[in-house]
Amino acid sequence: MRAVVSGKFHTSLLRHLHKSVNFSTRLTSTSVMAEKPTITFYTVGTPNGQKVSIALEELKLPYETYKINFQKSEQKEEWFLKINPNGRIPAIVDNKRGGFPVFESGAILLYLAEHYDPEHLLLPEDANKRSEAIQWLMWQMGGLGPMQGQANHFFRYAPEKIEYGIKRYQDETRRLYSVLERQLADGRPYIIGDYSLADVASFGWVAAHNWAGVSLDEFPNVDKWLHRVAERPAVRRGMDVPDKNTLIDRDFAVDPNAEQKARDSAKWIFKKDDKL
Amino acid sequence: MRAVVSGKFHTSLLRHLHKSVNFSTRLTSTSVMAEKPTITFYTVGTPNGQKVSIALEELKLPYETYKINFQKSEQKEEWFLKINPNGRIPAIVDNKRGGFPVFESGAILLYLAEHYDPEHLLLPEDANKRSEAIQWLMWQMGGLGPMQGQANHFFRYAPEKIEYGIKRYQDETRRLYSVLERQLADGRPYIIGDYSLADVASFGWVAAHNWAGVSLDEFPNVDKWLHRVAERPAVRRGMDVPDKNTLIDRDFAVDPNAEQKARDSAKWIFKKDDKL
Repeated sequence: MRAVVSGKFHTSLLRHLHKSVNFSTRLTSTSVMAEKPTITFYTVGTPNGQKVSIALEELKLPYETYKINFQKSEQKEEWFLKINPNGRIPAIVDNKRGGFPVFESGAILLYLAEHYDPEHLLLPEDANKRSEAIQWLMWQMGGLGPMQGQANHFFRYAPEKIEYGIKRYQDETRRLYSVLERQLADGRPYIIGDYSLADVASFGWVAAHNWAGVSLDEFPNVDKWLHRVAERPAVRRGMDVPDKNTLIDRDFAVDPNAEQKARDSAKWIFKKDDKL
Repeated sequence: MRAVVSGKFHTSLLRHLHKSVNFSTRLTSTSVMAEKPTITFYTVGTPNGQKVSIALEELKLPYETYKINFQKSEQKEEWFLKINPNGRIPAIVDNKRGGFPVFESGAILLYLAEHYDPEHLLLPEDANKRSEAIQWLMWQMGGLGPMQGQANHFFRYAPEKIEYGIKRYQDETRRLYSVLERQLADGRPYIIGDYSLADVASFGWVAAHNWAGVSLDEFPNVDKWLHRVAERPAVRRGMDVPDKNTLIDRDFAVDPNAEQKARDSAKWIFKKDDKL
């Protein structure tokens, strides 16, 4: 059961936390909920947001989704800065733990694993395996995400065509894919062997490789891994938050309306210069 | 007691792990050590390396330092890729825990906190405070580090002067400093209140603001925080790994030889195109 209602109404964090309309809510049962679901999730449909929705789906956590309106720079409004001082998505509020807010996708994954992953699906119990998952999470946070993000910028959004920037960041994205390719070369199904938050973190970025103008032709193990992760029902559900996403259905091809989408996005990207 | 010996000798990981010459070793006592210190630390003197040396000093962990030779692309040699598949610094090997390797500075900080921080100096015991520290660690890993790093690239290293790139990344670095400025505006001494790995992670980057061409004039609270962290003896010791660093002594001014250093660095940066 999912209800999507759009609109704006926030004037204060307090008011926000107590108002339950204007959210899309994902329930784990069909019962009507009398209180807020465990997690309130603030997002838009980007790879960083998808990490969190995939994790929420994997952990079967009750959550409601609030779609941030970037066109109106809602992420810079005071009520949201109290949840995420960095003014970005994703962020969560844990309604079960006193309204505790968490920002930065990597921190949200670790938080959800700590509090809501008793079966250690996302984060292994063994200390060394847990560290391996965190190492690859950091690799995505500090490398794959920011660098592929810059490739997107220079390849898709920048008002000037700057070959130096396009080449620099596409090359680095390929280098990072080559690191993942090598990690998967022994036939392991997932990045650290078993499925973990390392896969959750990188999936949405690798899934969007064509948007950055990077092919997986040279990276057959990455390609197999991508398709393997995409088969997980929770991943498919997570990709559809906050809106239906056809990337998996298109087998990761670029949206036929890519050019128009890039122009539309560029309008608000350059309004606030805040989509690095 | 610290002994510095330089040289190269690695041909295999096994040989490497059993050979203890050609390292600089920081001992916690003046006794001669019969076995390898707890941690072997692979680094060069950059903000990402400094995070780890500061943490090692704060935790008073016995460690030896191996300075990676970037000019010879030692970080891409097979023995090192077994420690860090991403071919970057920093990385550690934990000799006390079976030679377990950890790469990515953020993952190393969390690993050291988990195994060697019984007094919770770097990572608080309270779950919410711990998450706050991790949120700001992720903010540094995914934002401040990569973006200030790009400012360095376009401002200092790029062979063409590309105004678009310089402005883009200096602006984003300033935006990130403004986020930190606001976090510190209530007079708290450190990022989450008490000192933590959040401060350790961001210190070296903010300390190098002038290298990126960004001033702290607009960020008085960040400037005060920077000087406060710089007063910690462990921070001063950590900054001097693997080589003496005069940044704090210069009160964070740009090295008078900056231009020459940038040209020297550019030689190997563009040889391998691997210093994003």
